Amino acid sequence: MIVLFTDFGWHDPYVGQIKAVLAQTAPTTAIIDLLHAVPDFNAHAGAFLLAALAAEFPPGSVFLCVVDPGVGGPRQALVVAADDRWYVGPDNGLLSVVAARAREARYWRIDWRPERLSASFHGRDLFAPIAGAIAAGAFPDDRLTPVGAPEVAFDLADLPRVIYIDHYGNAWTGLRGGLLGEQDAIELKGQRLGRRLTFHEAAKGEAFWYVNSVGLVEIAVNRGSAAAQLGLALGDPVRVAASQGRLH
Amino acid sequence: MIVLFTDFGWHDPYVGQIKAVLAQTAPTTAIIDLLHAVPDFNAHAGAFLLAALAAEFPPGSVFLCVVDPGVGGPRQALVVAADDRWYVGPDNGLLSVVAARAREARYWRIDWRPERLSASFHGRDLFAPIAGAIAAGAFPDDRLTPVGAPEVAFDLADLPRVIYIDHYGNAWTGLRGGLLGEQDAIELKGQRLGRRLTFHEAAKGEAFWYVNSVGLVEIAVNRGSAAAQLGLALGDPVRVAASQGRLH
Amino acid sequence: MIVLFTDFGWHDPYVGQIKAVLAQTAPTTAIIDLLHAVPDFNAHAGAFLLAALAAEFPPGSVFLCVVDPGVGGPRQALVVAADDRWYVGPDNGLLSVVAARAREARYWRIDWRPERLSASFHGRDLFAPIAGAIAAGAFPDDRLTPVGAPEVAFDLADLPRVIYIDHYGNAWTGLRGGLLGEQDAIELKGQRLGRRLTFHEAAKGEAFWYVNSVGLVEIAVNRGSAAAQLGLALGDPVRVAASQGRLH
Repeated sequence: MIVLFTDFGWHDPYVGQIKAVLAQTAPTTAIIDLLHAVPDFNAHAGAFLLAALAAEFPPGSVFLCVVDPGVGGPRQALVVAADDRWYVGPDNGLLSVVAARAREARYWRIDWRPERLSASFHGRDLFAPIAGAIAAGAFPDDRLTPVGAPEVAFDLADLPRVIYIDHYGNAWTGLRGGLLGEQDAIELKGQRLGRRLTFHEAAKGEAFWYVNSVGLVEIAVNRGSAAAQLGLALGDPVRVAASQGRLH
Repeated sequence: MIVLFTDFGWHDPYVGQIKAVLAQTAPTTAIIDLLHAVPDFNAHAGAFLLAALAAEFPPGSVFLCVVDPGVGGPRQALVVAADDRWYVGPDNGLLSVVAARAREARYWRIDWRPERLSASFHGRDLFAPIAGAIAAGAFPDDRLTPVGAPEVAFDLADLPRVIYIDHYGNAWTGLRGGLLGEQDAIELKGQRLGRRLTFHEAAKGEAFWYVNSVGLVEIAVNRGSAAAQLGLALGDPVRVAASQGRLH
Repeated sequence: MIVLFTDFGWHDPYVGQIKAVLAQTAPTTAIIDLLHAVPDFNAHAGAFLLAALAAEFPPGSVFLCVVDPGVGGPRQALVVAADDRWYVGPDNGLLSVVAARAREARYWRIDWRPERLSASFHGRDLFAPIAGAIAAGAFPDDRLTPVGAPEVAFDLADLPRVIYIDHYGNAWTGLRGGLLGEQDAIELKGQRLGRRLTFHEAAKGEAFWYVNSVGLVEIAVNRGSAAAQLGLALGDPVRVAASQGRLH
């Protein structure tokens, strides 16, 4: 399974161009569009989104990850093997959280350059051929150099910010819900929100936080838009107010 | 063929997460994204859209239908067999119109609960595994209980409202065009529109109604946006003004 | 490989309806969504976009091209074979640039009409069955009539306008970059922009032009939106200011 994780959006031809390469390189592999709405250019939010989303994919999955504002510059290109899954993408921190949280991770730098390497679209020209080869079972040893670690890595601690807003207006944070207690509150934008286990528990229009389906703390409003109602934007800081009144 | 019909939109990871489950459960089955823009939370509009769209799919198609604002609450989960097609989704009326219009329909309640059942994403955790099993030819008898009818069903009569607005600005209504005459007019927002057989018959910028490609009465403007030009919104009521001047 | 190239957008069911037809006609063929955001109704921009994008697809690819505001009117339907690729779509100029730039092109008119031919959706009813048959290796001789040329063809010269704006705000023009020199400037909206080879070469927020990954002159801003910053819109004229000060 090849899993696409990018900031390309759906509007443009970029996703299709990558799939055309994959269809030729790994013709029998299923391709899953996981997310093309990683916040534009934002490898930091992307790294925490990827770490939350990747866990539910089966062993052997190959993630093609492209959030790559430094394309054409000196940033390196990486392959990461972490907990039986593969990740291919730029060395800008995007792959660093999923790697650091793994029980075991190995790293390779992509030194190979294809005959046609555009200045702006390494997703198509560099990352897709490598991801396709791995998915097709032909690990491209000859195009990779083992390295000890990525050059860029983000702080592993949870990211206490809004990292994604879905089309319903629910705001995902970079906090893992498993670390919070049932009585903990979340503070953001000057408001304090309690926890609900399900949307159904909240009154219509009520704002709350809950642990979403990928394990992150999410701010939501039952049958409404939390983003609109609370005025939330990407990057807004959030704070855990522990049940005893102490702040984490 | 598994056909996805949801209000998830394309922006978010939800569609991809469902496809990852299906790729593992029914790996050789084609997956078709029919519509992810059912109006949010609106099972009523969704029920009439589904009934109009489903007819062109081949026998054996499995529709995975998720418009599920009651997720996490007491609503039941359903499998419906209707006219040689399968439908899997919440028991909130969404599947009721396609079932009631069928020559024959059978119903099962999904009593099974998976080991991992999130509070907010039964599309991935509950409906997709069942739809995948049916598509793979392994009808999951052991996870279903035959029931006589759904708990929630909408009035079967055509829905005289705008139920969908496409990206060109064309407004679909819940009226089946086959029930109208060639001289009938449609009234909405204080205006009376005549029928055209094709866009080509209308002058540039002219508003009209016609029977669209799925058999519904649609309000359109040739090379323009009916929604913008006539100020249309989801839910706007429409009325048939019969050719004799009588109103239906 | 069947490649979809339309102005249908992703919002609506139209793409899925076409794929359902293709899944039945050519079940083992990969389907690639190249672009569903051709500017609405704009076969002119579409023709130059198609010519730029098609070159990277492998021999034998079948392009299903639907930008079809004249559907239901007298416009003809075409199959074009050009440089070992196939194109199926309306005879409104959309296929004319890719054909005229080919070393060799052949043309067929689609005279066949299916039993169910809607007035507004020939993409599903007419073009998809033909494209599917070609992709499945069953060239539909009996449904086609060889013709010498399309009825509608655009001027072959490069189109000196903004023909596409991507979701980052980069503006593609209809000018092929290979025809320009490194010192040439681009003038648009009263501004004169120099060339950069990569985004990385430009300062943050700087506007420039470069040759994009499909060979077109593109107006961009490093880590920003050229469309917003320069006030660009589809159709805006652009002008090449040669390095010697002469205007092309």
